[in-house]
Amino acid sequence: MDTSYTKNIKEEALKLIKQIDNSENPNLQILRRSLNNVFFDNDKKIIKLGDKKETRNYFNINQAKKFMQTLKILAQINENLEKKTPNISTRQLFYMTRGIIENSNEECFEDQSESDPIIEDVEVILDTLREELGLIATPDGYFVGDIKVKDLVSGDLLDYTKMGSGGGAIPAIVEKDVYDIIECKAKFVVVLEKFAVWNILNQTKFWKKHNCIILTGKGQAGRSARRLLTRLSNEMKLPVYVLTDLDPWGYYIYSVYKQGSISLAYFSEKSSVPTAKYIGMTTKDIIKYKIPKSSWMKLKDIDYKRIKEIKKYDWFQTKEWQRELTRLEEFKYKVESDAFVTKSVDFVVNEYLPDKIRRQDFLP
Amino acid sequence: MDTSYTKNIKEEALKLIKQIDNSENPNLQILRRSLNNVFFDNDKKIIKLGDKKETRNYFNINQAKKFMQTLKILAQINENLEKKTPNISTRQLFYMTRGIIENSNEECFEDQSESDPIIEDVEVILDTLREELGLIATPDGYFVGDIKVKDLVSGDLLDYTKMGSGGGAIPAIVEKDVYDIIECKAKFVVVLEKFAVWNILNQTKFWKKHNCIILTGKGQAGRSARRLLTRLSNEMKLPVYVLTDLDPWGYYIYSVYKQGSISLAYFSEKSSVPTAKYIGMTTKDIIKYKIPKSSWMKLKDIDYKRIKEIKKYDWFQTKEWQRELTRLEEFKYKVESDAFVTKSVDFVVNEYLPDKIRRQDFLP
Repeated sequence: MDTSYTKNIKEEALKLIKQIDNSENPNLQILRRSLNNVFFDNDKKIIKLGDKKETRNYFNINQAKKFMQTLKILAQINENLEKKTPNISTRQLFYMTRGIIENSNEECFEDQSESDPIIEDVEVILDTLREELGLIATPDGYFVGDIKVKDLVSGDLLDYTKMGSGGGAIPAIVEKDVYDIIECKAKFVVVLEKFAVWNILNQTKFWKKHNCIILTGKGQAGRSARRLLTRLSNEMKLPVYVLTDLDPWGYYIYSVYKQGSISLAYFSEKSSVPTAKYIGMTTKDIIKYKIPKSSWMKLKDIDYKRIKEIKKYDWFQTKEWQRELTRLEEFKYKVESDAFVTKSVDFVVNEYLPDKIRRQDFLP
Repeated sequence: MDTSYTKNIKEEALKLIKQIDNSENPNLQILRRSLNNVFFDNDKKIIKLGDKKETRNYFNINQAKKFMQTLKILAQINENLEKKTPNISTRQLFYMTRGIIENSNEECFEDQSESDPIIEDVEVILDTLREELGLIATPDGYFVGDIKVKDLVSGDLLDYTKMGSGGGAIPAIVEKDVYDIIECKAKFVVVLEKFAVWNILNQTKFWKKHNCIILTGKGQAGRSARRLLTRLSNEMKLPVYVLTDLDPWGYYIYSVYKQGSISLAYFSEKSSVPTAKYIGMTTKDIIKYKIPKSSWMKLKDIDYKRIKEIKKYDWFQTKEWQRELTRLEEFKYKVESDAFVTKSVDFVVNEYLPDKIRRQDFLP
């Protein structure tokens, strides 16, 4: 773990001591993470935090507890970094910081729902990701393809062409200083929403024939799957194509890989792939490839409601996406990518994907 | 995929044709999977199906649809096996069999909740597991340790001492004919309920120091994690120790690894580790190892209710477990295994586990 972060934490602490010495109200300046400071950057095509700051004061009845909680989390992270402890989860950090504050009757955190937002604050204060502070989210997802990584923690050389039928697990931390991509011969990445679809591509070695990486986050993308994809795009310059279900939830999963999410705007700046393309499924695909009607599912009220919401998001304001969203409303059915098998089990491998990629038939 | 299953499917079909030729009511004999045919085998210490059979008739208003659905699923599985298609998920099989039955107005399956129980029937009819019929459940979980596996599908040699900080992914299918354990020098297995605890053990290379396998199913154990553990116990003769949270949900996760579950009684016969031991956490551990009270969480009504239910299960009828369950009720708190870090991040690695294992301090 990079010890420069303990230096940054100490700088924050020194600022506070100076404020106390000057008889000022001790305070922390934190970029606001509330909705009114989150925006879609139309140039960079990512969701990011604005520059509005908030002040967290010690002498303020409404802010004193959060001030104290922030220092407690900073102190614990600092201690862990200095002791070079193994990485821990945010729940474990919650337990480490729970309990009565020394020399007080104040309970620091009752519930993890209090400590998690403070961790996000700390990421913003230190301008880093929790992963660099030794904090992990439970990872999920697998990938394979012609790429080799040196794991600088375990010392292992990981060859993702030799990961067996299970594929390579996406680790909790995929940052450059611990997870060093030393070779990548693959030419592009196909991201699959569904494990079952990824699994067909893996079994048939689609990735070998087309010299690509295939990756699944198993539904909603987790933090490390998004970070890994971002690195494959930024550092390896690989084009990224995303295949999801044809429904508003699938469209949204694509958009999180591409430009991030409002709720994690700070993370999104560092974990987005603005050049990603939506390979499918689209309403047009269903007709063009004659996906049998027996696999269509009627859209429900909740789906229509979600389509309307998505239509309003800044990052869906392209004519292609507005048209697609209207088409889905008119089409009245959703079609899961699992349903490709109704054509034949290898249809997605031998026809759909090669054809879409050859014709570069994508949504932006 | 073993083609003997297509032979078995054809035998079932031939029986039906013979019944038709004899002008009998075509019918299938299926072991009952309902509660009144599930029992705990006190000798073998596993949950299993009894031998009560039910007859599914074609000429019976209440059974005709299920009869038809069963044949449809059998026919589709047979076709997939004959064509040697890649393995698919139960949802994909649902899509392949959905839609109007030929020459009828009958919808075969409206919802996957109709096809899933039929798949379980088919496993029982053919006396096999769905995995051997080319059907997968989405896998979850990781493991590492001194064990080498030849993946007979991909041809890869998998060395689980060299899997990096992410660990080895547990594949969807870990059956012997595709996933061949060719060497195992590890001496026992530690199963961790929580990924975050497993991750500390992996980072500190606990498995190397103690020459064991560490495995996590990330909460509730999935099918392939249970199958893998069963093989490590049966074929490699490795002792299995399970570490879960101190709460009724943790106890139950242990019991599923050990003797299976009522809802999947048929699978449980083939996926249980009757010799598994419960390493912790126990009520005694909390006191003995002085786990700080700041990490205890008050038991809620739903927890007390679950303790009472578990107390009645046949497989918790040992004096040790009855005592532990009563102690937890009296203790009034649950303690998650994530809370070990309140002692120190490496407490579980350097003190708790080595001490418990050295003293063989387990619950049965």
